[in-house]
Amino acid sequence: MGLDQVATKPHEELASHLAGQMDRVNTLIRTRMASRHAPRIPEVTAHLVEAGGKRLRPMLTLAAADLCGYDGEFDVHLAATVEFIHTATLLHDDVVDESAQRRGRPTANLLWDNKSSVLVGDYLFSRAFQLMVETGSLRVLDILASASATIAEGEVLQLSAARDLATNEDIYMQVIRGKTAALFSAATEVGGVISGAPETQVKALYDFGEALGISFQIVDDLLDYQGESHSTGKNIGDDFRERKLTLPVIKAVAAASEDERAFWKRTIEKGDQQEGDLDQALQLLNRHGALSQTRDDARYWANVAKTAIQSLPDHPVRQMLIDLADYVVARVN
Amino acid sequence: MGLDQVATKPHEELASHLAGQMDRVNTLIRTRMASRHAPRIPEVTAHLVEAGGKRLRPMLTLAAADLCGYDGEFDVHLAATVEFIHTATLLHDDVVDESAQRRGRPTANLLWDNKSSVLVGDYLFSRAFQLMVETGSLRVLDILASASATIAEGEVLQLSAARDLATNEDIYMQVIRGKTAALFSAATEVGGVISGAPETQVKALYDFGEALGISFQIVDDLLDYQGESHSTGKNIGDDFRERKLTLPVIKAVAAASEDERAFWKRTIEKGDQQEGDLDQALQLLNRHGALSQTRDDARYWANVAKTAIQSLPDHPVRQMLIDLADYVVARVN
Repeated sequence: MGLDQVATKPHEELASHLAGQMDRVNTLIRTRMASRHAPRIPEVTAHLVEAGGKRLRPMLTLAAADLCGYDGEFDVHLAATVEFIHTATLLHDDVVDESAQRRGRPTANLLWDNKSSVLVGDYLFSRAFQLMVETGSLRVLDILASASATIAEGEVLQLSAARDLATNEDIYMQVIRGKTAALFSAATEVGGVISGAPETQVKALYDFGEALGISFQIVDDLLDYQGESHSTGKNIGDDFRERKLTLPVIKAVAAASEDERAFWKRTIEKGDQQEGDLDQALQLLNRHGALSQTRDDARYWANVAKTAIQSLPDHPVRQMLIDLADYVVARVN
Repeated sequence: MGLDQVATKPHEELASHLAGQMDRVNTLIRTRMASRHAPRIPEVTAHLVEAGGKRLRPMLTLAAADLCGYDGEFDVHLAATVEFIHTATLLHDDVVDESAQRRGRPTANLLWDNKSSVLVGDYLFSRAFQLMVETGSLRVLDILASASATIAEGEVLQLSAARDLATNEDIYMQVIRGKTAALFSAATEVGGVISGAPETQVKALYDFGEALGISFQIVDDLLDYQGESHSTGKNIGDDFRERKLTLPVIKAVAAASEDERAFWKRTIEKGDQQEGDLDQALQLLNRHGALSQTRDDARYWANVAKTAIQSLPDHPVRQMLIDLADYVVARVN
């Protein structure tokens, strides 16, 4: 995710502020991913869970609950739930994308097989629902079940939208609202709900999570064309090679001359890519200002996120969340 | 499933008794498998849901609720939930097994791709949880979330147990309790729970569902060696060719001479199969009485199922469930 390169690291500030709770989340994750009968389950899960993702989504749940003055124990359950759902979708995504690397390590589908990734993902998903049931909150269950449906819907939409030059910015937004923003917004919203926060605060937390997720995904897609592989763990042009129509290319296609359109048709739709095509793609992206417009969009959504939580009570965590929104786009400044 | 060949068809009796409710279940299924944003979802789902499975599992939920005198509307939600979970696991199973046929039609993974099957399965699973949330019963959510975890656990265990001659009857029972019996028992249990039935009745319904599911799966595995393909939709010896260690082979391996063990090692563990091996396998199964012992086991579990519901109130549905248990094993008499 490339969150390591800058001096200020708001996710680390948050992590340090929430360290006690995060320890409990990690313990709960380890306990609940065990399986009495199928030892392969914790093997596969540990490979991914222990690989040291930033635990950004569970941290958002803990932060939202903290901000709303929650002093119960179910924020930990919900944070673990959110991480389980995230991990389950990663396992299934890697099968769908036929990925070979995740977080700098070989993917589970490569180390074991697609079968294990599908079934262990299903297991984690079920365990996530069991954790939620323990909170006794039907509203929380409703929010996270709906988010899960929206995630799957976004991924299916992405399947048909990928490699199709007719994909426009509306469809792109629909896809990333599903595949990324839905879990971010559910993560912050349930933190407010479990705290019994007033509806205006719950709404503000939802809006913050959604806009942060959108900004986060736009930045991710931008970094694919302008990041450095050591900071992102991805190689420049992976999306191009995999023929994924992300925001920068959608903008360049919309502004393309006839010749340029033929280039995108050949490389993305037909998948006929040759030496030098990535350079050519980068030139076209720059010629039409597609990268800088994408950066502007990411900044716009980061601002939406910050504005959303201005109404929340003054609290150290509120400032950390504002810093986090700034930091997400700072990765591409 | 081969439930078509015999004169008495208890699942049709049940279907006719519950026809009004089943219509509402089918309507709910069609409504909830829609997706505003991703039209591929209902395409894939309809292919499977409309293919005309017997809807055995949702019928068990309706039957249990009817037997307990339920007059609310949530039995329909729960029956649709159970069918969604079942359909999601079928989609994922076909990816895991690389199957080409299901219910006499090409599988979704063959018609679309593995990606769609994985993601549409996830979508149905999420929709199932949304349906449950609408019932407002945390206990029902707990039962079905646990059943889902047990199903995934059983499937993962099967992955490592398959093709391993060390798999014994205990492991086999563990696998089928997970992959089959867990959803049968949850289906009947939630029918009782939603009705507010006394705990002894809920327990009896759970026990009935579990034993029926075990019997059903043992019969399914037996039919793979002695069924007729037109009645089962499977070809004789599919499990042998796919090197699955099911109960008949486990029994034959346990009784095998040194030479016979070498045969199983070569064909199942190493997968080195030649012309005539299936005939040889059938001879060994018969020599050690493995098929008739397996049939005895199926009958034993059908009797456990029938005994379990003897304590339930006298009701036409109770007799239909007893007939159903008889009918499951009648397929191999």
